[in-house]
Amino acid sequence: MKVYGSIEAGGTKIVCLIAKSSTKILDQWVIQTEMPEMTLNATVAYFKGMLLQHPEWQLQSIGIASFGPIDLTLTSKTYGFIQQTPKPGWAGTDLVGFIQREMGVPVYLDTDVGGAALAEYTLGAGKEKNSLIYLTIGTGIGGAYIHYGKNIYGIHHAEYGHMKVPRIPDDAYRGGCPFHDDCLEGMASGPAMLKRWGIPADQLPMDHPGWDYEAAYLGQAVINLIYTLSPEIIVLGGGVMNHAGLIDKVQDFVHANMNAYCQPAAYRTEIRSTIVLPQCGNIAGAIGGLILAENGLKAKK
Amino acid sequence: MKVYGSIEAGGTKIVCLIAKSSTKILDQWVIQTEMPEMTLNATVAYFKGMLLQHPEWQLQSIGIASFGPIDLTLTSKTYGFIQQTPKPGWAGTDLVGFIQREMGVPVYLDTDVGGAALAEYTLGAGKEKNSLIYLTIGTGIGGAYIHYGKNIYGIHHAEYGHMKVPRIPDDAYRGGCPFHDDCLEGMASGPAMLKRWGIPADQLPMDHPGWDYEAAYLGQAVINLIYTLSPEIIVLGGGVMNHAGLIDKVQDFVHANMNAYCQPAAYRTEIRSTIVLPQCGNIAGAIGGLILAENGLKAKK
Repeated sequence: MKVYGSIEAGGTKIVCLIAKSSTKILDQWVIQTEMPEMTLNATVAYFKGMLLQHPEWQLQSIGIASFGPIDLTLTSKTYGFIQQTPKPGWAGTDLVGFIQREMGVPVYLDTDVGGAALAEYTLGAGKEKNSLIYLTIGTGIGGAYIHYGKNIYGIHHAEYGHMKVPRIPDDAYRGGCPFHDDCLEGMASGPAMLKRWGIPADQLPMDHPGWDYEAAYLGQAVINLIYTLSPEIIVLGGGVMNHAGLIDKVQDFVHANMNAYCQPAAYRTEIRSTIVLPQCGNIAGAIGGLILAENGLKAKK
Repeated sequence: MKVYGSIEAGGTKIVCLIAKSSTKILDQWVIQTEMPEMTLNATVAYFKGMLLQHPEWQLQSIGIASFGPIDLTLTSKTYGFIQQTPKPGWAGTDLVGFIQREMGVPVYLDTDVGGAALAEYTLGAGKEKNSLIYLTIGTGIGGAYIHYGKNIYGIHHAEYGHMKVPRIPDDAYRGGCPFHDDCLEGMASGPAMLKRWGIPADQLPMDHPGWDYEAAYLGQAVINLIYTLSPEIIVLGGGVMNHAGLIDKVQDFVHANMNAYCQPAAYRTEIRSTIVLPQCGNIAGAIGGLILAENGLKAKK
């Protein structure tokens, strides 16, 4: 039986899947993300062990959805390497090369958020659509644009969190990004909310003005992305979006602030079904990895 | 002899070309943009007249690079129609349908700036590259992203001018966009510069602080586009960019303010050859129309 592997390499945990297809998962395994050598050896040991236990499983390929920054340029000498990162020990790790050498099957790569975006596009909120933006708002802010099934970027994967949008005039918070101070991530990530209000986002009361600030920053970022890429659907995920009512506030901000300029019905009358929460759950990135593994082989043939 | 037609429909003038290919122009004709019926009838009369004079010319197709907003969605009932626009009489004009019915050849459409972007990608600053952003800064601000030869957008063409970036803290100008006040176009177009400083951009002295403001607004917009789409090359055109030295200021702003975060060499050591002025001159949009006409037929076959 043909099976596919997936590795969602996150900053705090690694999720591995073995599956018949992206909708038929046979096994799931999770470990904490420690130093790279130990973590990657354990990951390989998991796959090898499962394949020994199930001699009928024929591993075809592996998809990796990894935290970044990571080099996605196929022709680059450091393709598949983790780039500069504050995560101890991981900068310069040859993630794709290691897995490919150890497992001996084709390995396909995207970012973790690229994987989640692909999962939502293929099986989730975007499954009837041709273009989708996925934006995740948690410890950091990241995103990806899927256009007719492909993650679109130029010489580096997207880093939506580091765009800048206007400050709210009475917002005194300096911004928490070590590189850009008050970029989107610096102003609207979970840690930024904690630092500004002194309360973790998940404990901030429903009627706290912090949610209006948050909706304004996220809403303006969404408007910038609409005027740049106009996706059919926009999925907002990540821990901060778990706050009940935040999605509605973002929808309202976008609707009001586009102010009827180049505002197709999707962003006007259909705003509630266009800016939405994710549907693929908390292993979306790993499911995206399975889709990468399947699609990568198909493209090769 | 096979020939191709091109119509660059701009807000103030219409440029028509007849050519053997995008690099072999046989004839060029320009008229002022008046009310749509008169203007389009004159345009059709030009093509028909030229074809009568040159019976050896066999018109294959026409490419249109038009001012907008215009509906580019092939499956839409209003595909090829000019949308809401302040330009008197043009809203709701069936531009593509009229030309197609009158001329009886396939017609291919993009925005004017999409056409200019395609020209730069194919024959100009981007001819060795796989991804290019073209941003034009003049009466308005617009742009397009060409990725492996295709203009990439979702349900509406790009409107980069209407993204927002942070205000410069001591900038007291309210912003001139009738829809969004201080969006990029509202703060950094030619008319915005005139209103803020009381002097037309082309007469603003070299050492006027206005150029630092301009470079900061444009530079931040470029950074937002890099963190979204990371093109191999970024072309800044339009009348405002004719100011000597502005391109260098934008390069410097982008280099400094990305602050080494996800900043590939293109935006670091190669910044002077990555953010550049256009090469295709002032009929770039019309040349893009020829490329549309040629490529459209190829894609059909």
